[in-house]
Amino acid sequence: EEVNVTHWVRGKEKAQLLEPRTAELSILGLGSSVGTPEEGITADAVVMRSFDELEERKDEVKDRIVVFNPPYVSYPVTVAYRVNGASKASKYGAVATLIRTVGPFSIYSPHTGIQEYNSSVPAIPTACITIEDANMLDRLERAGERLTIHLYMEAQTLPMVISRNTVAEIKGSVYPDQVVVVSGHLDSWDVGQGAMDDGGGAFISWQALSIVKGLGLTPKRTLRLVMWTDEEAGGVGSQQYYQRHREDADKYSILFESDEGVFLPYGILFSGSAEAKAILQQIGQLLVSINASEVYDNGGGTDVDWWREDKVPTASLANHNEHYFWYHHSNGDTMDVLDPEEMNLCSAVWAVYAYVLADLDDVLPRG
Amino acid sequence: EEVNVTHWVRGKEKAQLLEPRTAELSILGLGSSVGTPEEGITADAVVMRSFDELEERKDEVKDRIVVFNPPYVSYPVTVAYRVNGASKASKYGAVATLIRTVGPFSIYSPHTGIQEYNSSVPAIPTACITIEDANMLDRLERAGERLTIHLYMEAQTLPMVISRNTVAEIKGSVYPDQVVVVSGHLDSWDVGQGAMDDGGGAFISWQALSIVKGLGLTPKRTLRLVMWTDEEAGGVGSQQYYQRHREDADKYSILFESDEGVFLPYGILFSGSAEAKAILQQIGQLLVSINASEVYDNGGGTDVDWWREDKVPTASLANHNEHYFWYHHSNGDTMDVLDPEEMNLCSAVWAVYAYVLADLDDVLPRG
Repeated sequence: EEVNVTHWVRGKEKAQLLEPRTAELSILGLGSSVGTPEEGITADAVVMRSFDELEERKDEVKDRIVVFNPPYVSYPVTVAYRVNGASKASKYGAVATLIRTVGPFSIYSPHTGIQEYNSSVPAIPTACITIEDANMLDRLERAGERLTIHLYMEAQTLPMVISRNTVAEIKGSVYPDQVVVVSGHLDSWDVGQGAMDDGGGAFISWQALSIVKGLGLTPKRTLRLVMWTDEEAGGVGSQQYYQRHREDADKYSILFESDEGVFLPYGILFSGSAEAKAILQQIGQLLVSINASEVYDNGGGTDVDWWREDKVPTASLANHNEHYFWYHHSNGDTMDVLDPEEMNLCSAVWAVYAYVLADLDDVLPRG
Repeated sequence: EEVNVTHWVRGKEKAQLLEPRTAELSILGLGSSVGTPEEGITADAVVMRSFDELEERKDEVKDRIVVFNPPYVSYPVTVAYRVNGASKASKYGAVATLIRTVGPFSIYSPHTGIQEYNSSVPAIPTACITIEDANMLDRLERAGERLTIHLYMEAQTLPMVISRNTVAEIKGSVYPDQVVVVSGHLDSWDVGQGAMDDGGGAFISWQALSIVKGLGLTPKRTLRLVMWTDEEAGGVGSQQYYQRHREDADKYSILFESDEGVFLPYGILFSGSAEAKAILQQIGQLLVSINASEVYDNGGGTDVDWWREDKVPTASLANHNEHYFWYHHSNGDTMDVLDPEEMNLCSAVWAVYAYVLADLDDVLPRG
C-alpha cells in the first residue's frame, strides 16, 4: 500500500573541538535536522545537564552551541533531549545543539534518531555526540575552560516521496474481513544495517505467517502481516494505514508489533480489556514449555498505538532486551546482534498468539 | 632519560566494499603498516578464519586482499593475526590484509595496535576492521559472493625521533643505589585518549610515590617511578632503559608494571622465586581489608619482562579487567572507563608493596 514518506538526507557531517584543544568529535546528525551554512558553524559551547539548567542559564545561550549532557535515565525519559533539545535551545538564541547519545552504554559510538522542530523558533542544526565526548566537554566546562566547536552538516529534508507499507496475509476461512495483524517496520536509520531496529521485528512477523502456512493451517479470520514504512520519522507509514483503515476498526481483533528487540522472549505485553487479557493468558499457556507464557500490561508500539483511539487491543513482545539501546540507531545495529535461536523463539510466540487469536470464534472483547 | 622512539603516522585511511554491494568499512591502520599507492588498492578479497585455512587456500591469495576473521580466543592467542597476518598473507602474494579487531566484544569499533613485517616478504598495507564487518564479509563469501574492496591508507614510518622515559624517585635512606620500580607507560595509540592503556597505570604508579611522600615516609632503598615511552611499538623505551641499567641488575629488588587495567584490584601477579613470593604473600596481608591480598603467578609486562633475563622479580596488578579489551586500542579508551575509587584501591596496592619492599633490609631473593 502506497504511503507518502519523509525524505531526509544526512550528507557529510563533521564536528571538531577547537578550544581548549583540538579533537575530532564523532557525530551523527539527527533525523529532520537542517544543515549548517557551507562554511559550517564555529561558536563557543555551553554544556547543559538538564532542561532545568537550560532555563537557569538561558542568558548564556545566545549565539552558542548548546551541548546537552543529561544522564541516561530510560529511553522514554531521556529521548526528550534528542527530540526537543534543538528547539528548546533555539528559543534562547542557540545556533546549534549537540546531544549526548541516548543510551545506557556505548563504546564511543553516536546514535541518531528523529528530532522535532517547534515551528515557533528558528530551526538550528542538531546532532548526537558520543557519551564519552559529552562527558569530556562537561569536564572541560566544569574546569573553567572556554569551549569552541566547529560543526559542519549537509543535512537536508527533500520533498516527500512515495514508498509502501508491505502487506501479506493468510485469508480467513470464515471471517475473511476480520483481521489479526502482526507487524514490524521495514525502514531503519542509515547507519548500521537496521538488523535489530527493526529487521528482527519484520522477520518474526513474516515468520509467524510462514509457520502457520507451513503447518497447512487456515484460521477463521485473516492473519495479516504488515511491514510498516517510515516508522523512524514517527510512524508515518502506520499513521496513513490507520487513516485509511480505521473505518474497519471493529474488524481488527488485535495488532501485534515487534520493535523492541528479538532477544530471548518471556511473554507478551498487552493493552486492552481485562477480559481480553484473560484470553491471552489462556493462550500463553501454550508457550509454557519455552518459558514465554507471561502476559504483562502496556503492550503496543509506535506503529500500532494509533488504534487505541478505537479501543483496538495491541500487543508487543516481552524479551530480554536489556542491551537493545546499546545498538539502537547506531553503526552497531548489525546482523551480529541477532541470534537465530532467540529469533525462532520470538517467532514461535508470535505465531501461537496470531494463529489462535485469528482462529477464535470472536474478535477480542474491547474495553 | 632520552630514548629513540618509532615515528609512525597514520594519515587518512578509508576502506569501501564495492561488490557485491557498496558499504563503508570502518578501519584503523595497524601500527608500522605501510600505506597504499596514492590511487589506493582495489582488489577482490578472500576471507580466512585461521592461518591453517590460509595454508590450505594459499593458491587463492595472489593479488587479493586477505581478510582474517579468526574467532577471539584470548588476547595473547588471537593477537597473532594482527601482528603476523600481513606477512603471512604477503608470502602468498596478497596485496593487503584486513584483520578482524582483536577483542571479545565491540560495538562496531575497530581497534589498532602494532604489527610486524617479516623482512623476507614484501611489506603490504594492513588495517583492522570491525568484528561486525569481518563477520559480514565472512557471510558474503560463504554465500558465494565475489568480494571487491577498495583500500586507501596514507600510513608511513618516519625516521626515529628522541623522546623520554620519565623517571622520578624517593631516594632511599640506607641503600640509595638499590631500587624498587613502579611503572606504567606514557605513550598510547592515537585513537581514544589512552586513559586506560596506559594512563591508569602511569597514574597509580605516580600515586604510589605521592602516597609514600604524603605520609612522610622514606624507605631504606630508592623507590623509583618510571613512565615508559613507546611501549606500543613493543617496549622500545623500556628496552633502552634495560640496556642502559642492566649492569646494576643486582640492585633492582623488583619491578612493578601496571598495563592491564586499573579496575577493582584483588591482588598482584608475581614472577620470581618461591622465597620471594612468600615475602610478598606476607605483605599482601596488609591488604586484606580491601580484598586485595592474593599473590598469583605470572606477573610482569612488556616493559619489565626484559629483567627476567637477569632473574629480577617482576609483578603486575590482578584486577577485574574482564572488559579491558572492550576498549583497548580503540576510540573507546577514554576517561569514562576509569573509575576514581577503583584507581584509588589500585594505588593503595601499589603503594603498600612498593613501600614495604623498598623498606626491607634486603633486596628480594632471586631464583
